Amino acid sequence: MDLKVYAENISKRAKKSQKDLIKINTEIKNRALLRAAELIMERKEEIQEENRKDLERAEKKGYSKALLDRLKLNEKRIKGMVQVLKDVASLPDPVGQVISMWTRPNGLKIGRMRVPLGTIMIIYEARPNVTVEAASLCMKSSNAVILKGGSETINSNKILVNILKQAARETGFPEDAIQFVETTEREVVNHLLQLDQYIDVVIPRGGESLIRAVSEKAKMPVIKHYKGVCNLYIDNEADMEKALNIAFNAKVQRPSVCNAIENLIVHKDIAEQFLPEIAYYYGKAGVEMRCDQTSLDILQNHPKAHDTELVPAKEEDYYEEFLDLIIAVKVVNDMDEAIDFIHKYGSNHSEAIVTENYTKGMRFINEVDSSAVYINASTRFTDGNEFGLGAEMGISTDKIHARGPMGLEELTIPKFIILGNGQIRDNFGIPKKEEKVEINKEACDLR
Amino acid sequence: MDLKVYAENISKRAKKSQKDLIKINTEIKNRALLRAAELIMERKEEIQEENRKDLERAEKKGYSKALLDRLKLNEKRIKGMVQVLKDVASLPDPVGQVISMWTRPNGLKIGRMRVPLGTIMIIYEARPNVTVEAASLCMKSSNAVILKGGSETINSNKILVNILKQAARETGFPEDAIQFVETTEREVVNHLLQLDQYIDVVIPRGGESLIRAVSEKAKMPVIKHYKGVCNLYIDNEADMEKALNIAFNAKVQRPSVCNAIENLIVHKDIAEQFLPEIAYYYGKAGVEMRCDQTSLDILQNHPKAHDTELVPAKEEDYYEEFLDLIIAVKVVNDMDEAIDFIHKYGSNHSEAIVTENYTKGMRFINEVDSSAVYINASTRFTDGNEFGLGAEMGISTDKIHARGPMGLEELTIPKFIILGNGQIRDNFGIPKKEEKVEINKEACDLR
Repeated sequence: MDLKVYAENISKRAKKSQKDLIKINTEIKNRALLRAAELIMERKEEIQEENRKDLERAEKKGYSKALLDRLKLNEKRIKGMVQVLKDVASLPDPVGQVISMWTRPNGLKIGRMRVPLGTIMIIYEARPNVTVEAASLCMKSSNAVILKGGSETINSNKILVNILKQAARETGFPEDAIQFVETTEREVVNHLLQLDQYIDVVIPRGGESLIRAVSEKAKMPVIKHYKGVCNLYIDNEADMEKALNIAFNAKVQRPSVCNAIENLIVHKDIAEQFLPEIAYYYGKAGVEMRCDQTSLDILQNHPKAHDTELVPAKEEDYYEEFLDLIIAVKVVNDMDEAIDFIHKYGSNHSEAIVTENYTKGMRFINEVDSSAVYINASTRFTDGNEFGLGAEMGISTDKIHARGPMGLEELTIPKFIILGNGQIRDNFGIPKKEEKVEINKEACDLR
Repeated sequence: MDLKVYAENISKRAKKSQKDLIKINTEIKNRALLRAAELIMERKEEIQEENRKDLERAEKKGYSKALLDRLKLNEKRIKGMVQVLKDVASLPDPVGQVISMWTRPNGLKIGRMRVPLGTIMIIYEARPNVTVEAASLCMKSSNAVILKGGSETINSNKILVNILKQAARETGFPEDAIQFVETTEREVVNHLLQLDQYIDVVIPRGGESLIRAVSEKAKMPVIKHYKGVCNLYIDNEADMEKALNIAFNAKVQRPSVCNAIENLIVHKDIAEQFLPEIAYYYGKAGVEMRCDQTSLDILQNHPKAHDTELVPAKEEDYYEEFLDLIIAVKVVNDMDEAIDFIHKYGSNHSEAIVTENYTKGMRFINEVDSSAVYINASTRFTDGNEFGLGAEMGISTDKIHARGPMGLEELTIPKFIILGNGQIRDNFGIPKKEEKVEINKEACDLR
């Protein structure tokens, strides 16, 4: 297969489908999504059969247990995909939504109307359920999608795309709007990244090196999904029970994810009270604490921290996304120091403060420059579903277009619509009889 | 001067100022803008003195009259800058605006709040008034700005930045948030484009080659401002007077700008009535018509087109941004053909339909994929001021982040704010006495 031709072929098709996509109504989109949900249940055994092929190959290759677990489409995950399709069908359609409209003195009505981005390419990790999640969001937002999943899940992805396309055909949804990169040859991605005339945006998910490589090569805009070094700040006016529950939840409930905390920042006036308590519970859960000198002085030899692994923190620990039962601890003199710490070591993903003080809570919300900023809640809620956006396309760590979980709205962009009644600029219309036409040839400075 | 060190120095300063920017309130921002307006009038002679230096140098270099005209800060333009500062001061502050907030079943309040993008670098053409326009929009939206103007206007820009910084100092606005590239050495831009750790977005304005070069080199996101090949479609159900006025206005009132039309598309059933009329007025204004065969057949030897220059159109004419008194004409069989024409030859900038038919108007609005889509009005209104956005940072031709004129809102991005009351995920808090902690080490698939 000529990979360049292949890349051009699928991206041209996706581009071409935009013309049909913009004409279909919400009902057709929902019908396609719900039919796909039915088909997944109907063809469940086929899906698991194909998934087994992926698993066997991965086992032979000696992949880690964690990766194998990710690949697997068990009963729960299949039901999860069905639920995503139903959820996305039930969400309001963002396309055509006029988010504001105003009237100008000359009577022009000017509005901002949400339209699809066009064609979205998503490059994702070895998780077959992302195929359904990403495709369903694009379908509902009238975007064409090019799916490039991890090569480890090629068979599972293939059957899922096959099902999505069948659902499209049966319901009048433009089938070509769902494109799938069938080859596992990496070179095809490089070709696709050149085709900015067909592909409007790329969303790479996965490791940092993949994202950097895609950003460097892509000719079209890239919405990046980098790591999460999330921080929790326990203020001296924190409620102790909230502080303990949030610090425990945000680290321990699922340590391997991007919205779990990696750094625990504690105000010096509450450190002697709070640290031994949390150390006690972290100890029970097997969390290793990497402590600065102040926290180490408090915890070392403290009876409550008896069973907790305490390690002196190195500078680089504060930058690290452990994704594990490890937390770095820092005691600060005040909130300013906490915010500076977050801006220095954090990755602008999710940060939380625990405080009962109104002014400090509001300051934290305003001054912390992250995609999700919390007062008195666990950072673990940074997720499209938990935020009530329905599914999500990923969590943007970029600072333009979208920050944080990307739902349907973030897959659209407002264009301007202008409803007129014959308005012309500066009343400069066709000249009346024998009127001389004077043309403003002045350069563009006033438009 | 070591350009690399210089680039790092100014962008670090801009980045650092963000911390102060986020703390000042709207009143301080407005005071700084209004003080700058006063200072421009107070120091008018100085400004014109510096501007004369630029003009003299440009004259010596033999620059075109059009360019010299652009450089010049005459009375009208100085007043224009003052007005922009006052206008921007009077606009509502977008920063901190919560555009939506909802409550989740667990009581979490989740909202989208507008925040600045961070540091914006704008690279612009030789027009000193853009210095004031761009800086004022960034100041009001709490963004740090790095201004890189055309080298031809270095002296004019320098004094204007000097005035803006004086206004900042006098009013408590962070002075370092306004950075100006003082050197005219081109290499400095290449260094700046590498500094994505300090600069969040680049907005290049000017020629296509500049924009392409910036896009290729920049490590940070680029919001592009490409050309405008704007189209006007005269439907068979158009009102003749509106059609003539709009076709005349959109081409003739100021032909040198990006929102003037380049292509005139006419439905076949109205072509024989409409074309000779508009040819008559275009003839009066000196507009050359590049005609397809059908329109040529209608116009050639028609008495109304007697004084109009008619030229057979070539395929490449339809792609061209003439920016001059030239228009390409195409007769189509129906609206579908018109829309296909627009998508093929247009640049997704501004397009208009003239029709009295409701359904066709609505279809045009929905199906034409451009940043500004009009019914019954001239495309010449595509402009931040005309749209009521106040000033504008430029007109984005990109499909992510912002389409069309970029005002204050487009210089912000919503982040998520989450107001909690101790909420934790899955009720997984500190364990009760002797409760065993079971940790979900499953991979990240459900977040």
